[in-house]
Amino acid sequence: MMLGAIEAGGTKFVCAVSDNDLKIIDTVKFPTTTPAETLIKIVAFFKPYTLSAVGVGSFGPIGINPDTNDYGHILNTPKLAWRQFDLRGALKTALNVPIYWTTDVNIAAYGEMMAGAGQGYSNIVYLTVGTGIGAGVITAGEFYYGIAHTEIGHTLLQKQAADSFAGSCPYHQDQCAEGLAAGPAIEQRCRQKAEKIGATDPVWAIEADYLAQLCHNITLTFAPEVIIFGGGVMHQQQLIPLIREKLATKINGYVELPSLTDYVVPVGLGDQAGLTGGLYLAQKLID
Amino acid sequence: MMLGAIEAGGTKFVCAVSDNDLKIIDTVKFPTTTPAETLIKIVAFFKPYTLSAVGVGSFGPIGINPDTNDYGHILNTPKLAWRQFDLRGALKTALNVPIYWTTDVNIAAYGEMMAGAGQGYSNIVYLTVGTGIGAGVITAGEFYYGIAHTEIGHTLLQKQAADSFAGSCPYHQDQCAEGLAAGPAIEQRCRQKAEKIGATDPVWAIEADYLAQLCHNITLTFAPEVIIFGGGVMHQQQLIPLIREKLATKINGYVELPSLTDYVVPVGLGDQAGLTGGLYLAQKLID
Repeated sequence: MMLGAIEAGGTKFVCAVSDNDLKIIDTVKFPTTTPAETLIKIVAFFKPYTLSAVGVGSFGPIGINPDTNDYGHILNTPKLAWRQFDLRGALKTALNVPIYWTTDVNIAAYGEMMAGAGQGYSNIVYLTVGTGIGAGVITAGEFYYGIAHTEIGHTLLQKQAADSFAGSCPYHQDQCAEGLAAGPAIEQRCRQKAEKIGATDPVWAIEADYLAQLCHNITLTFAPEVIIFGGGVMHQQQLIPLIREKLATKINGYVELPSLTDYVVPVGLGDQAGLTGGLYLAQKLID
Repeated sequence: MMLGAIEAGGTKFVCAVSDNDLKIIDTVKFPTTTPAETLIKIVAFFKPYTLSAVGVGSFGPIGINPDTNDYGHILNTPKLAWRQFDLRGALKTALNVPIYWTTDVNIAAYGEMMAGAGQGYSNIVYLTVGTGIGAGVITAGEFYYGIAHTEIGHTLLQKQAADSFAGSCPYHQDQCAEGLAAGPAIEQRCRQKAEKIGATDPVWAIEADYLAQLCHNITLTFAPEVIIFGGGVMHQQQLIPLIREKLATKINGYVELPSLTDYVVPVGLGDQAGLTGGLYLAQKLID
């Protein structure tokens, strides 16, 4: 028997099949188009394999409460074709196996806890900074949910005086983390892609301040053991040391933090965090 | 057999004894002085009663992890006589009954869930705005803890352009909620006590904005069913409608909120929330 994982992103889907020891034996990647086209490709990929369960991490917002009608649905997304689509239900019907259903950031957080930078911890916040900003929150080994999953990317930040950018969030403009500090915000502010901007550009001090603000607030709300950063923007490796320094200044001794080099860390599994977590979660379903 | 509750505040201690049906039959209140003096008064108050358990909500920060050495201790408080004092241990020895140990805001949150404005919900954030700003967070009926309890009062807020106050937080000045919006911040800004300031004073629009920012961030992190406001500053009853209005503007449709009049509400039990919660938690220990 084999296990499956699906990273259902707003831009692309990535699927993997592993053996029972979670060794990946096949993967596929394709752009996110319509739900119908996407499902056909998923089914075609998994068809040769006898799966015992599949772990799915989806872009969102998604319904996460099994007691409500929108469980498994993609909710109020700007991608209109996917709005209110019952992705979990469609996958369950198409693949006919147990489905572990959570957010894309949660499966990455889980992967990091099981096999990446979060090993040994059970209280983790995984932050991805890419097209958007999202957080997967694990508390005492379990995903944190209230009546919805967290949306930390849309919490409010203090705009820096040195920053004249008008913000890129369609809901909160320059008021929230995503509008100030996600990849598109950097690109629009600097008129070039984040990955093309040199490591000494002043934009990174601004960016690090915003991400340190997020870390400050996460520390004083979720109180994790470690904050793990992933996502495309974090390929700029000068960011993590800058964030640590600014976080220490902001917290200013109010709570005792672990050593900052252990507390604010880059992703351990790179782009494999999500698939890895998805496979572990699939395995959890059959244990 | 009877139940006990202790609200251990930085300014005053309040204790109560109830019968098995949680009907309060005796209470006492005294100023917080030294640990030794305070314990003598607590023991004297409870001495006539045969208690089966006591629920304690303490000022903090406090150690909340039973696996660590500082469990039950008061940690890095500015009240030096109490720093590192093992309040839970001292109470357990002095009263010789099971002690439910958590924060002052958590027992109030629990009281509100069981018998106040949070009845029928199991995902609650209780915010007190008084000498400080604190939050009790209940998720799926249980207190939220990471490796520490939350410290929402020290999360960062956006300072309003109309606000020239330099902030009252000794750690974060005008950067955090407590420094901008707790009772001392209002008093220092307006040079009069919050309760003396008229309902139409422009300071309340500023205050409501800060509290609405907190609600915005709480909504997108903890995702509760209801946010309940208590504490002395909230006696200014014009605040709640202002907060609701500003919260709606800030969230701007990004997530669907319950009806705001159900979502942002005043405390139901007034000053009794803490003692009520303490008694319910004591009862929980013996059930």
